[in-house]
Formats: sequence, C-alpha cells, structure tokens
Amino acid sequence: MKKYALALAALSLPVAISAQEAGSVSLPDMADGALTQDTIAWNFVEGLTTEVGPRQAGTEAEQRGRDWAVNWLTSQGFQNVADEPFMMDTWVPGELASAAITSPFPQPFQVTPLGGSASTGADGIEAEVVMFATTADLMAAPAGSLDGKIAYISHSMTPTQDGSQYGFAGPARWVGASIAKSKGAVGTVIKSIGTDKHRNPHTGGTRVVDGMIPAGALSIPDALNLERMFERADGRPITMKLVLTPEKLGMTRSGNVVGEIVGRDPSLPPVLLACHLDSWWNGTGAFDDGAGCGIAAAAALHVSHTGQPLRTIRVLMAGAEEVGLHGSVAYSKAHIDEPIGVAFESDFGADRIWRFESNFRETNPELHAQLASSVARFGVANSTIEASGGADINIARDQGTAIIDLQQDGTRYFDLHHTPDDTLDKIDPAQLRQNVAVWTQVAGILANYEGSIKGE
Amino acid sequence: MKKYALALAALSLPVAISAQEAGSVSLPDMADGALTQDTIAWNFVEGLTTEVGPRQAGTEAEQRGRDWAVNWLTSQGFQNVADEPFMMDTWVPGELASAAITSPFPQPFQVTPLGGSASTGADGIEAEVVMFATTADLMAAPAGSLDGKIAYISHSMTPTQDGSQYGFAGPARWVGASIAKSKGAVGTVIKSIGTDKHRNPHTGGTRVVDGMIPAGALSIPDALNLERMFERADGRPITMKLVLTPEKLGMTRSGNVVGEIVGRDPSLPPVLLACHLDSWWNGTGAFDDGAGCGIAAAAALHVSHTGQPLRTIRVLMAGAEEVGLHGSVAYSKAHIDEPIGVAFESDFGADRIWRFESNFRETNPELHAQLASSVARFGVANSTIEASGGADINIARDQGTAIIDLQQDGTRYFDLHHTPDDTLDKIDPAQLRQNVAVWTQVAGILANYEGSIKGE
Repeated sequence: MKKYALALAALSLPVAISAQEAGSVSLPDMADGALTQDTIAWNFVEGLTTEVGPRQAGTEAEQRGRDWAVNWLTSQGFQNVADEPFMMDTWVPGELASAAITSPFPQPFQVTPLGGSASTGADGIEAEVVMFATTADLMAAPAGSLDGKIAYISHSMTPTQDGSQYGFAGPARWVGASIAKSKGAVGTVIKSIGTDKHRNPHTGGTRVVDGMIPAGALSIPDALNLERMFERADGRPITMKLVLTPEKLGMTRSGNVVGEIVGRDPSLPPVLLACHLDSWWNGTGAFDDGAGCGIAAAAALHVSHTGQPLRTIRVLMAGAEEVGLHGSVAYSKAHIDEPIGVAFESDFGADRIWRFESNFRETNPELHAQLASSVARFGVANSTIEASGGADINIARDQGTAIIDLQQDGTRYFDLHHTPDDTLDKIDPAQLRQNVAVWTQVAGILANYEGSIKGE
Repeated sequence: MKKYALALAALSLPVAISAQEAGSVSLPDMADGALTQDTIAWNFVEGLTTEVGPRQAGTEAEQRGRDWAVNWLTSQGFQNVADEPFMMDTWVPGELASAAITSPFPQPFQVTPLGGSASTGADGIEAEVVMFATTADLMAAPAGSLDGKIAYISHSMTPTQDGSQYGFAGPARWVGASIAKSKGAVGTVIKSIGTDKHRNPHTGGTRVVDGMIPAGALSIPDALNLERMFERADGRPITMKLVLTPEKLGMTRSGNVVGEIVGRDPSLPPVLLACHLDSWWNGTGAFDDGAGCGIAAAAALHVSHTGQPLRTIRVLMAGAEEVGLHGSVAYSKAHIDEPIGVAFESDFGADRIWRFESNFRETNPELHAQLASSVARFGVANSTIEASGGADINIARDQGTAIIDLQQDGTRYFDLHHTPDDTLDKIDPAQLRQNVAVWTQVAGILANYEGSIKGE
C-alpha cells in the first residue's frame, strides 16, 4: 500500500493523513483529516477542467476526458483501470445558436439548443411566438393550434435545498418540444430550467417522443424580457428568428472509466462509487460532474490509506450520462452478473452533504444506524427517506442491491447546472472537502463490512 | 401643471404623490413619497430595455433608443423635447467572437471584442499566448519581444463601494492593446475588467494610440482557467485561435436627447440632470445607463409636481458615451454659450446613493450644507471630497460651473458593467426609488435656488 501513501504525498497532503504508513491511521481520523486537508478531489476536478474542459458525450472531447481520467487513476495507484467502450447515437450542438425578436421590439436574445434539438438550418426559422405559462397549458392547446408557430413555455423554478423543483419545472424541457410538435409548432423555446439570473441559458436532455423540432432554452433574463414584451405588445404578434444548427453524428464511441482499490477478499461484492465523466459542451463540467468523480476517487484513496479494505472499492466514472444515461445502462448490461454490495454516487454539485439515506434502514437497521451516526459530526442528518440512487448506478437498481444517497445541498445547483457557468471557480474547496470526508467515512465502513449490506 | 399630475397618475402612483393638484405637496413629502412609491424610473428603464434593448452608439438601435426616449419624455409632459444630432466615427462588434486554446489543452473560451478592436478576419489568428501579471509588466517587455504573439494581461479587480479599483485595473483594457502592439503583438486578450465570476466577458472602451490590433476580453472564469493552464503547461507554449470581426462603419448619426421642465424664470441658468442613452451591444443597458436616465427624468417630474420650479430643469440623455463621450463633447460644443447653473449625472448603476459631494462646499457652504442635510434621512453622508462629475457633463467642467456627485454604491456595479448581464432583472426597485428620492430632494432645492449656486 506504500504507493498510495506516496501518491497522496505527491498531492501535498499534510502529515496527519499522508506521511504515515498505510494502515496506521484510523478511518475516523482519516475522514477528519480529509475534512480540512484533502487535496485529491480538487486536484482531480481542477486538472480535468483545465486540461480537458467540456466533454460532450460521444465526441473526441469526451474521449480526451476518459484518457485523462485513466492516466490520473493510474498515477494515483488505482488498479484494474480501464476504459470500457460502448457505442451511442451522438448529437452535437453545432455552430449557430441565436434567437432574435424581430417584431414589434427587435432585439437579440441568448439561446442554447436543448439536447436532441433538430436543426433550423443556418437560415433559421421566423415565426410568431405563442406563450404558455406551464407545460400543462401547452398540453391543453388544441391540435393544429400551433401550426407554423414557435411555442414558448415560461414555467419557472425556485431554488430548493433538495432540488425537488427540478421535477416540478423540468417537464417544460423534457417533453415541451414533443408536445409542441404534436400541436403543429415548428420550434420551441423555454425559459431555462434554472434558478440563476444570468445570460447563460441552461441546456439539458429532452425526451424525443415522435421526431423532434428545433428546441432551445432562453436565458432567464431573456425569458423575463420576452414576457414583458407580451405585456407591452397589446396583442400585436411577437415574432422570433430562431437559428439552431445541431447535428447528429450517427454511432460513435463512448465509454465508462473504472478503477479499483482491490480488497482483501475479492470474492465479496464490491462497493461501487459512481459519478459521470461527460459534461454538456457549454461548460467545463466542474460542478456537473467533475467534482463528483473527484469526491468518489478521493474517498476510495483515503479508505485504502487506512489499510487494504476487506471489499474491493470500484470507482465508476460513467460516460454519456447527460444525453440519456448511456454509460450507466451500458455498465449494467456489461456487469449485471457481477453482484455489487452497495452503490452510491455523487452527481449534484460540490456543496455540502446534509442528509444520509439508504434503502436498507429496515432490512439492516444496525448498519444504517452505524453509518448515519458516523457522519453526524459532519452535519449530516439521518433520514427515513428511502434511497433510490442516481443516474449512474442503474446496475444497483437492476440488481436490487443496497443503495445509499448522500444528499448534497442543491440550493445553488440549478444556478450552474448545464450552463457555461459550470466552471471550477464555482466550487467551494471547504464544502468539497466535507463531501470527501463523509464519503471516506461511509465508504470505509462499507468496504470493511463482513455481512450482507442490504441485510435481506 | 395639471398634465404632469395626469401623467404621474397614468403610471399608477399612489395618492400621496400623484392625485393631488401640482404644488400642493411639499418637496420633502414628494421625496419621501418617491422613496416608497416612485414608478417612473422603473417605467422608463423597463420600457427602454424591453422595447429597444441594446443601443450600440452610432447604430440604428441607438436611434431607436432616442426615438423611444423622445416619445416617452413627450408623453410624460416634458417640454422642448429634442433629438440633437451629431456625427461620429462608428465601430460595431461584428458577428464572430471566439477564443479557443489549441495547445496543449484544447478548449473554447468565452471572449468579447473590446471597443475599437481591429478584426482578425473570419479565419482568425493563431499564436502563442504570453502572460503578463499587470499592465506595467507588459510595458516593461522589450520592443519586438511579442512579435507574432498574443499578449494576455491577468490584472484582476476587487469590488469596491466607491468603484475606485476601476482606475487600478482599467489600464489593462484602456491601453493594453496599444502597448502590446508597440511590442509587436498581433492580438491582445485581457482578463475582463470586472468583479463577477460568470462566463460573460466585459467589453469596454480602449484608447487607440497608434493603430489597433484585435483586442478581446476573456470572461473571468476563462481567464482563471488560462492561468491554471500556464501552471500545468510546464513551459510548453500555449497557443490560442482568436477570431474577432468588428467593423468600422465610418461616419454615422448619433444624438443627444433633451427635455425640459421649464422654470418660472427661464433666464436663470438651468439645473442639468444627465445620463446616457447608449449602451454596449451585448447587454440591454439597464444598469448602464437606462436606470440613470430613469432616475433623472423621474426626479425632474417629481420636482415639477411640487409646483413649477424657479429654474428650468433640463434632462440630458447623452448619446455615444460608452465609445468615447461623443455625446457629452457634442453637447458642450453646441451649448457652451448657454450657462448651466449646476449639473449632476447618474451613471453608476441603480444601487443606493450613500454620499453627497459638491464642488462648492467652500464657495457656497450654506447651500452645500443645506443639500447634504436634506438627504441625510435617506442614508446619504456628507463628504469633503470635491465633486468632479461624470462622463456626461463635460459642459459643466468646460464652463467651470457647479457640480454635484450623488455617489451610488458600486459594490456590484462591476459584476454587470459592459456585460450581457446588464439586464433589467439586476435592478433592485427599492434602491432605484432611493435614488429617485435623493435626486428629487436635491434637484428640487437647486431648481428653486435664487442665488448663484456655485457662490463665487
């Protein structure tokens, strides 16, 4: 295990958690040390965003991200590091994105294509904009009532700590374009599904039901401006020139990057720590989800540093999450016959963890209580909510195995999510370290747990 | 004066300051009423940014802004409303703006052309980037040392209430390109002169000394990323592909919009309330300076509503301020022989006024003290700093007349200044009203002052 100690020292960790022989530091001391001293998670996300930057799924940029991650994991002493390939149908945003009001109040707006958007062609489309307050209002529009029009959905979103308003406002993005198309619309623009007030529109995935029309998101200030235009237009039609030129590249290669801290008993089902490595093209994928991969990798290394764990800890850096969970699906398909002991993921930014949830509170109450109690000192509360896991751990749901959710504070997550503003400077190093501390504590207990984690 | 009362009522002002006969409300009561009830300033800036939007100097968009302002001032009952034309040499930003690192860490950055920037042509330039910590370091570079290179200046800026760091960091923008050109550089990029952390680069004016090279500003997150690249490059050259395609349109028409509340004695030198109507193309000119024009116009109307003032109040909405104070210069040239009694302007956003300054504290101490004392209740402190006025009141400096500075809180001004984020939603209506209240109080005292305001 000496090599982990050296790798840690190379990242300039202070004496308390780096310079001693592996195994001489207890798990709680290691977690406490990570809270104030971890540099591994930062090093990962700083390096990835600086040396690679945006990593749109299925593109050569995502491949550069995988290559970078493979090198980094190897350099840190992870074993069985691999880039496990899968093929995917790849969409890219293209070169042009503009939305200008042409009448009665001509001015340019900031727009971004939504994932899967069709192209308007370089010449764009110009059409009257029809405003809907919510997705439900759009759904209620008569068939054919939007023939030749652009539908605008103004549904807005409020910051919430648990991120729950994503489910409330998200449908405008997820299904707005499909619904508008079914009513005859030639395009859709939505108010960005976000909570900021910057001229940085939020992209994101869509569900393509029956073909696709050009679909974009306006920045929130522009959306508010459009709504004021409707108030001032006195019934005059508002027309927009929309130019979006996404392209479909056909089947291209993506992949999942994995690396392991091999346990003393490799026959025991491993602990799976997950995140995703791809990002939307418009930001650098720092909050979403470079930070998550840094947290997972740092925790694995810190646990290894307390001595070789009983179970293998596997880090899964999934590919192509943003555009439809391709990596998570591919990983489950490839590994469905290899039982996982427990899985959890980090994919909600880099702000502090505030709540602990599991799906084994009733089946293994002692372990649940032990884990919850072990992270209370980091300000993490126990919860009766049943953990359901995130996008990157399909395999755990497919296998019906144990799942944990270490819920992060999402109050500002949707200020940054899927925008150009998802950059390293948004990460608070102290909160990032709190994530690493909690993950180290939880992963360390689980990696050394002898029984059935789910307890059934 | 009945028509002002009606105009005010049309903007839905509550009873206290609108529904009574003009002259029946005292000046202090009117100012107090504006603090909680003014809607005029908001109506102006909301209408201008919604119905016109960006107003780049010398373009048809600026002309639409003037037309809008002329109509608005007329509808509010201003007299002698005019659009006073002048000609200017006009620069526009063009269609393309991109800056991508091509080696060793390829990724796209957000860039905006600086005012006056030359064009790279649509094919752009690709060159090694040389980093300078400050403008002084760039100045110290030997002649020829930047042949064929792109100079990057990393000088950064801290928020200050009085905006004083603009003078500290600003030279990187004002003269960086000219200095870099003199050393042989083929382009310049600077860290945006701003205090935010968003992917919205700050444009702004430059001083063209001896021809111009392509000059852009990176957003602050991108600039920080570039600086991290230098740390990670281990001496390998960092190359950038820069594409900026500004154009010069030659001489085009701009203009100053004026409107008056005519006083009882038009022979007395008027009170000049100034702001500027143009904005950079990338935002909607809400904070800079639609708000300022709204404040000035609202104050003039509120004063008129306390009874016809002794002196004329003239509102000057200058054109083409951003690109070189063309409107202010043209106004002074056209009106230099018409004495002004006192001038002040609003051109520092829409946050609260916190300090009162004049240039007649020693020559007319009683009036200075009366004015300072009259706004103390709005949280405005007296000051011994000598007012120097802002960009839009050249005429007052040229005439050596009385000047007042009603200093606004600039703590977040440089988060928004010259960026796409300069939009209506950034304006806090309560702070905007405090500006109107202070302006109403000060303008009302001055417009009814019988003696020489400067007191010399």
